[in-house]
Amino acid sequence: MSDREKPIGVAVLGLGNVGSEVVRIIGESAADLAARIGAPLELRGIGVRRVADDRGVPVELLTDDIAALVARDDVDIVVELMGPVKPARKAILAALEGGKSVVTANKALMAQSTGELAQAAEAARADLYFEAAVAGAIPVIRPLTQSLAGDTVLRVAGIVNGTTNYILSAMNDSGASYDSALADATDLGYAEADPTADVEGYDAAAKAAILASIAFHTRVTADDVYREGITKVTAADFESARALGCNIKLLAICERLTNDEDKQRVSARVYPALVPNEHPLASVNGAFNAVVVEAEAAGRLMFYGQGAGGAPTASAVMGDLVMAARNRVQGGRGPRESKYAKLPIAPIGFIPTRYYVSMNVADRPGVLSTVSAEFGKRDVSIAEVRQEGMVDGEGQRCGARIVVVTHRATDAALSETVEALADLDVVQTVNSVLRLEGTTE
Amino acid sequence: MSDREKPIGVAVLGLGNVGSEVVRIIGESAADLAARIGAPLELRGIGVRRVADDRGVPVELLTDDIAALVARDDVDIVVELMGPVKPARKAILAALEGGKSVVTANKALMAQSTGELAQAAEAARADLYFEAAVAGAIPVIRPLTQSLAGDTVLRVAGIVNGTTNYILSAMNDSGASYDSALADATDLGYAEADPTADVEGYDAAAKAAILASIAFHTRVTADDVYREGITKVTAADFESARALGCNIKLLAICERLTNDEDKQRVSARVYPALVPNEHPLASVNGAFNAVVVEAEAAGRLMFYGQGAGGAPTASAVMGDLVMAARNRVQGGRGPRESKYAKLPIAPIGFIPTRYYVSMNVADRPGVLSTVSAEFGKRDVSIAEVRQEGMVDGEGQRCGARIVVVTHRATDAALSETVEALADLDVVQTVNSVLRLEGTTE
Ligand SMILES: NC(=O)c1ccc[n+]([C@@H]2O[C@H](COP(=O)([O-])OP(=O)(O)OC[C@H]3O[C@@H](n4cnc5c(N)ncnc54)[C@H](OP(=O)(O)O)[C@@H]3O)[C@@H](O)[C@H]2O)c1
Ligand SMILES: NC(=O)c1ccc[n+]([C@@H]2O[C@H](COP(=O)([O-])OP(=O)(O)OC[C@H]3O[C@@H](n4cnc5c(N)ncnc54)[C@H](OP(=O)(O)O)[C@@H]3O)[C@@H](O)[C@H]2O)c1
Repeated sequence: MSDREKPIGVAVLGLGNVGSEVVRIIGESAADLAARIGAPLELRGIGVRRVADDRGVPVELLTDDIAALVARDDVDIVVELMGPVKPARKAILAALEGGKSVVTANKALMAQSTGELAQAAEAARADLYFEAAVAGAIPVIRPLTQSLAGDTVLRVAGIVNGTTNYILSAMNDSGASYDSALADATDLGYAEADPTADVEGYDAAAKAAILASIAFHTRVTADDVYREGITKVTAADFESARALGCNIKLLAICERLTNDEDKQRVSARVYPALVPNEHPLASVNGAFNAVVVEAEAAGRLMFYGQGAGGAPTASAVMGDLVMAARNRVQGGRGPRESKYAKLPIAPIGFIPTRYYVSMNVADRPGVLSTVSAEFGKRDVSIAEVRQEGMVDGEGQRCGARIVVVTHRATDAALSETVEALADLDVVQTVNSVLRLEGTTE
Repeated sequence: MSDREKPIGVAVLGLGNVGSEVVRIIGESAADLAARIGAPLELRGIGVRRVADDRGVPVELLTDDIAALVARDDVDIVVELMGPVKPARKAILAALEGGKSVVTANKALMAQSTGELAQAAEAARADLYFEAAVAGAIPVIRPLTQSLAGDTVLRVAGIVNGTTNYILSAMNDSGASYDSALADATDLGYAEADPTADVEGYDAAAKAAILASIAFHTRVTADDVYREGITKVTAADFESARALGCNIKLLAICERLTNDEDKQRVSARVYPALVPNEHPLASVNGAFNAVVVEAEAAGRLMFYGQGAGGAPTASAVMGDLVMAARNRVQGGRGPRESKYAKLPIAPIGFIPTRYYVSMNVADRPGVLSTVSAEFGKRDVSIAEVRQEGMVDGEGQRCGARIVVVTHRATDAALSETVEALADLDVVQTVNSVLRLEGTTE
């Protein structure tokens, strides 16, 4: 047996949705994988919490001693698919320190400990791949780090969380309230029992941090990402959005901002936004994900596909595993962390956006002009206003709703305006404040 | 100066649409590129036919002696952006034989001499990158060779030629004839003076060959690709397509076919097809390109963006150049040709498709049943029939048009049926025969 054919030993940590699919593909596609890598992959063991003989894999492969599995001499690559950040971090650091390459789908970890892990990989001259951490099966990390390596990325905007996109799509399709759409999503398995990480935007923020880091060659962590969830989006917002020719989507946005003195900063943010129907992200529905990348030379690119699920996520993991294995066989390494640009992170107040503000107001003359004046005072120019009478349960008029859409202004000026509106006597409540995406006026 | 910072010498062959953008980016983004690569890129020379001082670059950089430029000791990477196959092949072979890495956008060459070039790269242990050869700025080659390296690609279907998509989009939007849409496209610079390579599908066929090769790990050349152009598509076809809820697009399709005995074959083909409006490719308009990839684990992915133009294509070239340069600095190599699967290529006759047939018939009773019988005789089942009376210049009835849409049958059975139809007395002419995409009935 020539040196080239020496098998590559693999440890898979986790046998859940993703791990079980990865183990299946390693077994079923063994011959193809060996041909593509130049050496066979050999599965040395699978790390789990519960070792038992009812798990669809030979029980001898299972172990709950993650440290021992990772430390084995015959393990060349560790594939981490457990989830919880603490044990994952420990296992990955141990693997890298032992000179093993690592493939992970762990966005929470990658958005938090990226520097530490990248340094460990660097010190060991080992690979650290994480394509599956953002947008499941959709190649996004590799296009950004490699295909666009010679271009200048200006902006990344994506629907990167399937659970919230499922909920928002249901609200748009059926007029359902947030609570009932969430309940349906939970029943159907699209939302977890504790949906906080998804609906509050933490998952999307982790992905935004990863995308911003690689797009702008700057270390961005989840804590740097401005974040609003979808829990306050109402059926009435969808009605107003429809009237404005828009849909509402939870977006992860990463942007390169250049000021008058040519100084650059980076913004990373997650919030529900009104997206015009003609924008390519407006029609990405259900559990699908899509990422739009704008680069100086390439223009606008879009990547679309399944952003989650065991098999799609396993596809991305397997791509990374084959790359890491090829590097072991042929020599060479995958891309490393690039943070040379070290751009400062701009606070949300500086970001120019457009706003949509919905408020209930007293139903009497002059209200609209009082409301408009608050925008004018702060140099926020109004693009569109809609005023509708509201009726109570008995069909009696009981006030009016005003919806204002602004032109582009800084987030700070817009939030000040909203605060002032809330203080006005004629404004009963400010129902919703959402930003607009994809229009530049 | 440490070894790491030794500059990487680059020769760019061609200073046309793409070459001039590549030269511009190498100059303008020098600092960023050096940081990403770990060493500066240095432009050693630019190969052209016409050396002159009015070309926007220092004339000392220009040379018409391609062989001498490629042979220079201080050139590490050759970027081929000339176009004509013969000189490009010669220059690339010389570069590879000299141990230099090569980046090219030359689809015609890559669809023809891929084996020879891959062998030369292999022998020299040098890189051969060609992302820009398919779909311009859109990352397609890298996702297929790397991101999906651990998955099984089942099908690739794409709009990969901007000129024909521009013409077909114009025909769809305005009801224009093919000739007038082509004339407009030529005036606006979307079509070349001699549009043959585009409108007859040669360009798309070259891209289909490249896509099929990498998707199925099998060497496929342009000659293996079944090819029909768009010159026979009529305004009446667009009318019928609209009535059927479809658009018409020139598609490049690469498919893995598995027969009852589990034997696999590969199909690569280019033809204008009816695409249902709800299919993601139906709304890709103008000069845009899009590629839909279906893989076993990943499911359906779509990649969308600008498929041509100097700057977008340069973006893809620059990504490859940075990768090739990084490999020089860090050691290691990019992906090599993978043809281990060596799947046989299926002739078009074996391919199951759906057909759309439009014919002019005598306007008398019984014609529809005569026509239908020809389909039935060959076991081709009919999904939908439309019959319309036709009127002449004076508003007199002058015959009828029958449009038949079939269920899935082999291409052989369908073409036999069409031949038989043409021989029928009641059929005056068979106007159009197009295939249907994206429906499985
Ligand atoms: N599911 C998706 O669609 C998706 C998409 C993208 C990324 N990801 C990421 O992929 C990773 C795995 O996701 P998943 O959905 O497959 O998770 P999962 O179904 O919850 O499975 C987790 C697996 O890890 C094991 N595990 C957890 N903690 C462990 C510990 N401390 N020690 C040993 N084993 C432990 C579990 O063992 P037991 O089976 O014994 O409990 C289980 O097999 C996560 O980082 C997730 O964010 C998932
Ligand atoms: N344009 C696109 O949108 C696009 C998209 C994808 C791929 N591509 C591919 O990229 C390549 C370049 O396309 P392009 O549009 O940039 O072509 P182009 O504008 O026609 O430019 C070709 C350049 O190559 C030089 N050249 C041609 N033959 C030569 C020879 N025998 N010796 C020396 N120099 C020679 C020409 O020199 P002179 O200037 O002195 O005549 C010219 O500068 C082609 O392979 C094309 O298929 C183009």
